[in-house]
Amino acid sequence: MSKAAITKQNIIEQAAILFNQSGFAGGSITDLMAATGLKKGGIYNHFSSKEELAIAAFDYAFSLYQQRYRHVLRQHRHSVDRIQAIVATFCDTVYEPLLPGGCPLLNTAAESDDTNPVLRDRVRLAMDQWRGMIRRILQRGVRAGEVSPDVDTETLTSILISSMEGAIMLTQLYEDTVHIARVREHLVQYMEQLRL
Amino acid sequence: MSKAAITKQNIIEQAAILFNQSGFAGGSITDLMAATGLKKGGIYNHFSSKEELAIAAFDYAFSLYQQRYRHVLRQHRHSVDRIQAIVATFCDTVYEPLLPGGCPLLNTAAESDDTNPVLRDRVRLAMDQWRGMIRRILQRGVRAGEVSPDVDTETLTSILISSMEGAIMLTQLYEDTVHIARVREHLVQYMEQLRL
Repeated sequence: MSKAAITKQNIIEQAAILFNQSGFAGGSITDLMAATGLKKGGIYNHFSSKEELAIAAFDYAFSLYQQRYRHVLRQHRHSVDRIQAIVATFCDTVYEPLLPGGCPLLNTAAESDDTNPVLRDRVRLAMDQWRGMIRRILQRGVRAGEVSPDVDTETLTSILISSMEGAIMLTQLYEDTVHIARVREHLVQYMEQLRL
Repeated sequence: MSKAAITKQNIIEQAAILFNQSGFAGGSITDLMAATGLKKGGIYNHFSSKEELAIAAFDYAFSLYQQRYRHVLRQHRHSVDRIQAIVATFCDTVYEPLLPGGCPLLNTAAESDDTNPVLRDRVRLAMDQWRGMIRRILQRGVRAGEVSPDVDTETLTSILISSMEGAIMLTQLYEDTVHIARVREHLVQYMEQLRL
């Protein structure tokens, strides 16, 4: 990597941490200057706007989750095991966060949905990917006779993601992992009941 | 109400709408001046700081939900009916919003958890009340023999709230009520299975 590429990557990583904790509106370029040790010009040399930087930071944050899922999914073949592994991996990030500040999808969705259509569309794309990953595993599971054919895969995908995202919100709000631990256990058991 | 009290109440209501959509950091006093038709001094005449106003706006937003729940709960006696009514009421706010911008608990939690301990503590208090309402109904239901005694009331409370909050996030993100409709149906059925 060139020195410029290393600097750019460092800005993205620091911005991901800042925006995930303080939000896009709440996280200032002054904060980012402090975190990176760069001057304003040194940041805007790499990004044409705060929004462009926010998108790069969000994409980076989401990529951390994708990498972790890919790694975990390599270890499981049965569809129920794979969904349980996704649930466990997502929920266990509270003990070993990929980024401080909770889930970047939830945080960025809650902030951008009414105010920032460009960023919101980026969150939609990321959520589409996450939903697609879960739905495809469930669909294959039904076809392979591993998952109960009574399952509506779209509905179960919405339920799994909603429960996990809401639980991470409660855990962040209370600084108490009990909520995510309860939802993790519930969803793992729920999936077990659907195993054929 | 005095003219001053009416003005103050109007500021609170407009601030609740603004902050629920744009966030506390994203919603500016300039926006609030436009929404209320007041000058800056006319706003700060009633509130010593933006934070004090944010707390009043959050409390007002939450009170709208409390009023709706109280109204709905008067119509149901059986504990399972009561929980199902809470789920239906919460989920159906997407068709008839109490406030634009989604759930004020989720929005304010996601924004304040890492950055604004005063506002975060207010959200905790509100969430404590919501959790307490659901948990007490479940506990009475177990004692009255209306709800399966196998239910861990604390766990079920976390699961119900997490699912609903996550679903409202998805619905706001996609501007598509299908996610909350799926979770509503799932939770109503899930509660039905616990009915004795």
